[in-house]
Amino acid sequence: MLGTYHRPGTAPGTLEYREEPGAPPRPPARINLYRYDPEGVRIQTDVPVADCKPSSKLGELTWLQVQGAPSPEMMAALGLAFDLHPLAMEDVMGRGQRSKFEAYESQYFVVLNKPMRDEEGALHTSQVSFFLGQNYVITFDEYAEDTFAPIRTRLESKRMFRERGTDYLFYSLLDVVIDEGFPLLEDFGERMDSLEEAVLEQPTRELRNQIHYMKRELVDLRRAWWPQRDVINTLLRDGEHMISENTRLYLRDTYDHCARIIDLVEMYRDMASSLLDTYLSSVSQRMNDVMKVLTVFATIFLPLTFITGLYGMNFDTASPWNMPELHWRFGYFYALGVMLVAVLGMLAYFRRKRWL
Amino acid sequence: MLGTYHRPGTAPGTLEYREEPGAPPRPPARINLYRYDPEGVRIQTDVPVADCKPSSKLGELTWLQVQGAPSPEMMAALGLAFDLHPLAMEDVMGRGQRSKFEAYESQYFVVLNKPMRDEEGALHTSQVSFFLGQNYVITFDEYAEDTFAPIRTRLESKRMFRERGTDYLFYSLLDVVIDEGFPLLEDFGERMDSLEEAVLEQPTRELRNQIHYMKRELVDLRRAWWPQRDVINTLLRDGEHMISENTRLYLRDTYDHCARIIDLVEMYRDMASSLLDTYLSSVSQRMNDVMKVLTVFATIFLPLTFITGLYGMNFDTASPWNMPELHWRFGYFYALGVMLVAVLGMLAYFRRKRWL
Amino acid sequence: MLGTYHRPGTAPGTLEYREEPGAPPRPPARINLYRYDPEGVRIQTDVPVADCKPSSKLGELTWLQVQGAPSPEMMAALGLAFDLHPLAMEDVMGRGQRSKFEAYESQYFVVLNKPMRDEEGALHTSQVSFFLGQNYVITFDEYAEDTFAPIRTRLESKRMFRERGTDYLFYSLLDVVIDEGFPLLEDFGERMDSLEEAVLEQPTRELRNQIHYMKRELVDLRRAWWPQRDVINTLLRDGEHMISENTRLYLRDTYDHCARIIDLVEMYRDMASSLLDTYLSSVSQRMNDVMKVLTVFATIFLPLTFITGLYGMNFDTASPWNMPELHWRFGYFYALGVMLVAVLGMLAYFRRKRWL
Amino acid sequence: MLGTYHRPGTAPGTLEYREEPGAPPRPPARINLYRYDPEGVRIQTDVPVADCKPSSKLGELTWLQVQGAPSPEMMAALGLAFDLHPLAMEDVMGRGQRSKFEAYESQYFVVLNKPMRDEEGALHTSQVSFFLGQNYVITFDEYAEDTFAPIRTRLESKRMFRERGTDYLFYSLLDVVIDEGFPLLEDFGERMDSLEEAVLEQPTRELRNQIHYMKRELVDLRRAWWPQRDVINTLLRDGEHMISENTRLYLRDTYDHCARIIDLVEMYRDMASSLLDTYLSSVSQRMNDVMKVLTVFATIFLPLTFITGLYGMNFDTASPWNMPELHWRFGYFYALGVMLVAVLGMLAYFRRKRWL
Amino acid sequence: MLGTYHRPGTAPGTLEYREEPGAPPRPPARINLYRYDPEGVRIQTDVPVADCKPSSKLGELTWLQVQGAPSPEMMAALGLAFDLHPLAMEDVMGRGQRSKFEAYESQYFVVLNKPMRDEEGALHTSQVSFFLGQNYVITFDEYAEDTFAPIRTRLESKRMFRERGTDYLFYSLLDVVIDEGFPLLEDFGERMDSLEEAVLEQPTRELRNQIHYMKRELVDLRRAWWPQRDVINTLLRDGEHMISENTRLYLRDTYDHCARIIDLVEMYRDMASSLLDTYLSSVSQRMNDVMKVLTVFATIFLPLTFITGLYGMNFDTASPWNMPELHWRFGYFYALGVMLVAVLGMLAYFRRKRWL
Repeated sequence: MLGTYHRPGTAPGTLEYREEPGAPPRPPARINLYRYDPEGVRIQTDVPVADCKPSSKLGELTWLQVQGAPSPEMMAALGLAFDLHPLAMEDVMGRGQRSKFEAYESQYFVVLNKPMRDEEGALHTSQVSFFLGQNYVITFDEYAEDTFAPIRTRLESKRMFRERGTDYLFYSLLDVVIDEGFPLLEDFGERMDSLEEAVLEQPTRELRNQIHYMKRELVDLRRAWWPQRDVINTLLRDGEHMISENTRLYLRDTYDHCARIIDLVEMYRDMASSLLDTYLSSVSQRMNDVMKVLTVFATIFLPLTFITGLYGMNFDTASPWNMPELHWRFGYFYALGVMLVAVLGMLAYFRRKRWL
Repeated sequence: MLGTYHRPGTAPGTLEYREEPGAPPRPPARINLYRYDPEGVRIQTDVPVADCKPSSKLGELTWLQVQGAPSPEMMAALGLAFDLHPLAMEDVMGRGQRSKFEAYESQYFVVLNKPMRDEEGALHTSQVSFFLGQNYVITFDEYAEDTFAPIRTRLESKRMFRERGTDYLFYSLLDVVIDEGFPLLEDFGERMDSLEEAVLEQPTRELRNQIHYMKRELVDLRRAWWPQRDVINTLLRDGEHMISENTRLYLRDTYDHCARIIDLVEMYRDMASSLLDTYLSSVSQRMNDVMKVLTVFATIFLPLTFITGLYGMNFDTASPWNMPELHWRFGYFYALGVMLVAVLGMLAYFRRKRWL
Repeated sequence: MLGTYHRPGTAPGTLEYREEPGAPPRPPARINLYRYDPEGVRIQTDVPVADCKPSSKLGELTWLQVQGAPSPEMMAALGLAFDLHPLAMEDVMGRGQRSKFEAYESQYFVVLNKPMRDEEGALHTSQVSFFLGQNYVITFDEYAEDTFAPIRTRLESKRMFRERGTDYLFYSLLDVVIDEGFPLLEDFGERMDSLEEAVLEQPTRELRNQIHYMKRELVDLRRAWWPQRDVINTLLRDGEHMISENTRLYLRDTYDHCARIIDLVEMYRDMASSLLDTYLSSVSQRMNDVMKVLTVFATIFLPLTFITGLYGMNFDTASPWNMPELHWRFGYFYALGVMLVAVLGMLAYFRRKRWL
Repeated sequence: MLGTYHRPGTAPGTLEYREEPGAPPRPPARINLYRYDPEGVRIQTDVPVADCKPSSKLGELTWLQVQGAPSPEMMAALGLAFDLHPLAMEDVMGRGQRSKFEAYESQYFVVLNKPMRDEEGALHTSQVSFFLGQNYVITFDEYAEDTFAPIRTRLESKRMFRERGTDYLFYSLLDVVIDEGFPLLEDFGERMDSLEEAVLEQPTRELRNQIHYMKRELVDLRRAWWPQRDVINTLLRDGEHMISENTRLYLRDTYDHCARIIDLVEMYRDMASSLLDTYLSSVSQRMNDVMKVLTVFATIFLPLTFITGLYGMNFDTASPWNMPELHWRFGYFYALGVMLVAVLGMLAYFRRKRWL
Repeated sequence: MLGTYHRPGTAPGTLEYREEPGAPPRPPARINLYRYDPEGVRIQTDVPVADCKPSSKLGELTWLQVQGAPSPEMMAALGLAFDLHPLAMEDVMGRGQRSKFEAYESQYFVVLNKPMRDEEGALHTSQVSFFLGQNYVITFDEYAEDTFAPIRTRLESKRMFRERGTDYLFYSLLDVVIDEGFPLLEDFGERMDSLEEAVLEQPTRELRNQIHYMKRELVDLRRAWWPQRDVINTLLRDGEHMISENTRLYLRDTYDHCARIIDLVEMYRDMASSLLDTYLSSVSQRMNDVMKVLTVFATIFLPLTFITGLYGMNFDTASPWNMPELHWRFGYFYALGVMLVAVLGMLAYFRRKRWL
């Protein structure tokens, strides 16, 4: 959650492989290289780092896809080949960076955070970093997930896609990462609905813990998505240098998706809070019910027991003033009758109070 | 609530018919065509999509009204005829879009969300999309409700209405969708009032669930209306290209309605939260009452029962020191007297504590 | 609370007399006409609508005071005479409009909402509308209250007042409506103080309902006053067209009053919330007290009753091992002694727990 | 808290002596006059109002210090002598004004609110008003406290102080009023610490009331200080007309103090809310403890009492099937043994539940 | 927490040694002097104050490191040597200053607040002040911690570091102070996780107090870090005068760290609040459980005890109508049977209520 950080005082731009405790381990990096022009695309997989450089062929565009966590040496080599800024390289290697957009002289650098569930269902963020240059795009996907597969397919199959510049590829890659928020939130929506139903019916400790964890995850998501929106917004505002007017129209669509996701996160947060309130009121109400049962029983049986105790006393009945009822012919029925009257009185009282 | 979304990585502008789980099914689209000039209006219903294009007659204006969810083919054909942007078409076909305003080169595109209750009273949003061109307006109303009937009537009956340009028609259509918020909120207001009265009188689990659902609906409405206001505001600020000064004066009125509706939504949210607090305090108070009854009964009868137990002991009264009271002539009355004193003492104590 | 609204789709500017359910009925409109110049003022009461038009005499200023709800016909006639905008006329006739400022070409239009208590003490808002023209001011006060009486007096008695333009009259009228907030809030302050005292002493259901209603009224007031402040602020910022530099100095004073009133409303809201929290904690504390009494009694008498039960058992004392205590000479005192020890032990325990 | 206000409709600038109910009475005004130049200072105390005017000597600066509440006559005379604006004079005479800065043509007018505790420790605000002219400063301190004593001392003793213009004197006077917030908040901090300790140890009704009053005072302080910060900020931004660059550097320091005080007020508010939450959870926990004691006792003694009751029944033991235990040689010990087993079982159960 | 402050009315720029009650004592100041150029660095420790002045050698840069709290005399001497502004010197000597940035004519002044735990683990802030001049940097670290050790190392070992100007040194020093937030928050994260686990399992008073203290510390941190971010932001915006374009790129990285830390603080605050809610609901749930046990026991044993009492009554069985059951052959078993049926009925009832 916190991400990794350098020891305070470390020189900026220090490249170091840091693992975050609690986060799933990251696979070592492998590099795919896509060189394309309108005519077609050449795909190379597991490219050695030495072969990674911008294309020297005019009109040929390059997408360098780094899958997994790069080693410091690989990062340094790529930095040399593509003239990457040391601070950007440091951010690529770290974890838990805030989403950011940085415009260097001839390069854009963007960090996004993709939500990801590990095998036990715990929510993590997977950092995805992007460099956009004049004729290349570099992506770093630390968990080597297959997020970009649809883009690869479109790159291979659509001439129209290849005809556009790197800015459109860059937009498409950003867009696919942002859109990962939708299935996640759909899942949240479904869990929220079933939780709600369960809480309104029968509140249990297990449900409360689930609400608690859901709130916590939403706090986490919120922290991840607000800066993400700012990143897209800054790109829209300040990105005219490297992003064409037409592509910015598409990017605005991505911004809308971001805004919609944030709306949903905030709405789910509201709903989770409201659900916890409802849970609490439900627990109160139940305690109330328990108390009523106790009270009804106690107030009915305490007087009865008192009466039985009364006629269980051992006063010497030689004296005619001592418990003459004991000698009555129908003393027992008299006692039972008194008890019956007491019970009926109680019941009437409770009915008037609407406890029954 | 979430709306529909494309699988991440889908090409932007992909037209696909997507149904949202939980939302009522949408009827297939039928097209009405209104061609009008100051002199009159020609209305064609169930127009085949091939006939839909801007009017070629000078001064004749067109309102193309699509009622229901268009098929991808219909959408594509309309896109061709009116030169619609692919992203806008994708938004029209989706569900749960955020309200938005997009200014394309020769076209405005607006998405609004109209609240709608289904047959069981559940709240949904019905997406209404608008295109404004130089001489045409297109509306897509996914649920084919009769919202625009009053506009049709005014178009047929008022020459003054027909004399104004498409921007005024566009405003009138937006206005009618926004104003749908008023009857909805009036209904909310009435339910809030009756809920309030009921809660202050007797809090029940049913009422709490109703408050919970109302809060949830208000969260939903809030999410729908804030972007709606931004849309109208952006139209006012940036719409001078296609909307005349005079029409903008009317649009400002629509903006005021929007602001008033949002004020009301926020106020009802405040009131619903306050009502839940009151509910909770009411439950607490009731538990307090129950506890008091229990306590009063227990503290009165426990001592009495103790005394009866005392004189029910079987100590051998051969010894004069063992329970001499049992032999007293008025032992029984003595015991009853002790009990009476205990009860009166208790009652005095409770009265001083104001429990009775 | 919601106010009135036209059925969605109604043509803008439609004049219609609409009554709001729940609000007190409004008297039909009567018109007073004040024509003044520095030399003096001519006052005409119950003027027929036909006589209402701007003064044609150079230097003579007009204040047209409409008291009560105008009929559509009256409104239309006035609209013709003073060239009022249809949307403004519609707003004047409605109820529950949001406070607003609209600058038409040669006219300013302002709607304010004055808080008002009806005979049963329920809070309503009374809409007051103002038109400012070059040489006239029109006011509509739907409940025909005597709010403007002090202005009339100053108009009659102060030459200095009559020497200033219509902008100063306009300011004075706005100011008196805004200032109506002070006595209302003073009343709130006093109720808050007495409620607070009562809650801290003895929390009752009645008090909680009062807090609830007060919170609700404050939510209402808040909704009314924020737009009011915006109105005055916009007048200050954009009103240089018709309001002189000098009058704006005075208007800034009105703005300060508005800000002060909003500060107070927010403060009372905070205090009401805090009071409800205190109420709740008070109820909890009281339940705690009740529980303690119950627990103390039960834990003292349960063991005693057990002991009495013990020696009330009927084991055959022929066997020397069966309840030999019953035959002891001081068996009874022994049993009483055991009970005394138990009671003293309990009391010591409770004292250590600080329950006594 | 509300302050005083004129009856709605009163002419602006009306001078009237108004006392606020609940606020301590204000002493009648006395005037001190300080005339100084770099060479020295002439101090006149209890100056008649007729002698109060700006100095006519070139280079001589004037500080007119009004201590206490001025009468309308005094105010009017001063207004004439120093050409004060009627609205400013009205504000000086009122109470509970919002802190404000007003730039008149040749004069600045500032109202600040100094927190002040009366003899019973209740928090009030004392309004301090300032006029800054080219060669004079006027201060009105309604409660005639000795706040400005250190300034007087510096004026008398420091040539460097006297060498600077009236803007520096003005800054020094503002600064001393703002800084009065620090000792007050220090006191709050100490009370907060001791309250916190007390609440965590033993929550009592008295403590809750103290938290309640503290929250209320902080709401009050907050209302007073936010406008105060705006005043200093506006002075910094718009005050270049009469305040030198150098003095503004000092004023920025005052602004920092203001910001620091507001930070502290907000922090204390947060802490007070958090403390109330803790109080509530403490009360809940205590109730829990009480309930546990009751439950443990009841669940141990109810079964025991049942057993004693069982063997206290009077079934005719002539039948060998009726309560044969009564005739057992060790029946009594058998019964005691059963009770012991029941008690031990209960204790084991409670220990497993961690209630003991 | 409050920090120290001058008595209101003290002359600005007054140098005075003030200790804050509660804060750990500060060691007296010692001065280290670093004079460097690209070729190397000369380090002098414990330099007398008289030797402290900017270097007169062209191209030689100076870092004056003051460790501990300076005496007024030392401060005054340094102020003279480096031409420091009196207000800045006052701030250096105080405690608990708000983080600030002040641009004097030829100097920047920055105050940051470093979080620091004392020996008992209590959170304090340690004020670090910075001056940046053309060829010198001065740092004041009031607690003489070894925060700057890594910078010293880099200064000694990296020629590249020495080649850059004082602005880069200045950035590095700021950065190391800001980054101190990360280990602190990492520690918070771990405590939060373990607290959460503990609360969800078993809520105790001890845990609640820990949550309370954590919330309080987070409120404190929040107050410290927001102004810190503003400082870095203002430096970025307004610092072009003395900070090179290249260094500002690095400073932007520091800004990102700041933003990330604030995000984390806010997230932890949210989580702490949520944890307290969960704690409260946990306590409620537990009380519910306790109540259920009590109720189940009481409702089972009260009827049983009543039955035993019934047959313990002493009615004279000479009358055949008085308790004939006592003479039945299987009366005892009949009574036991009735009791068994009562118990089974109760158990069935509780199972239906899901209490068992």
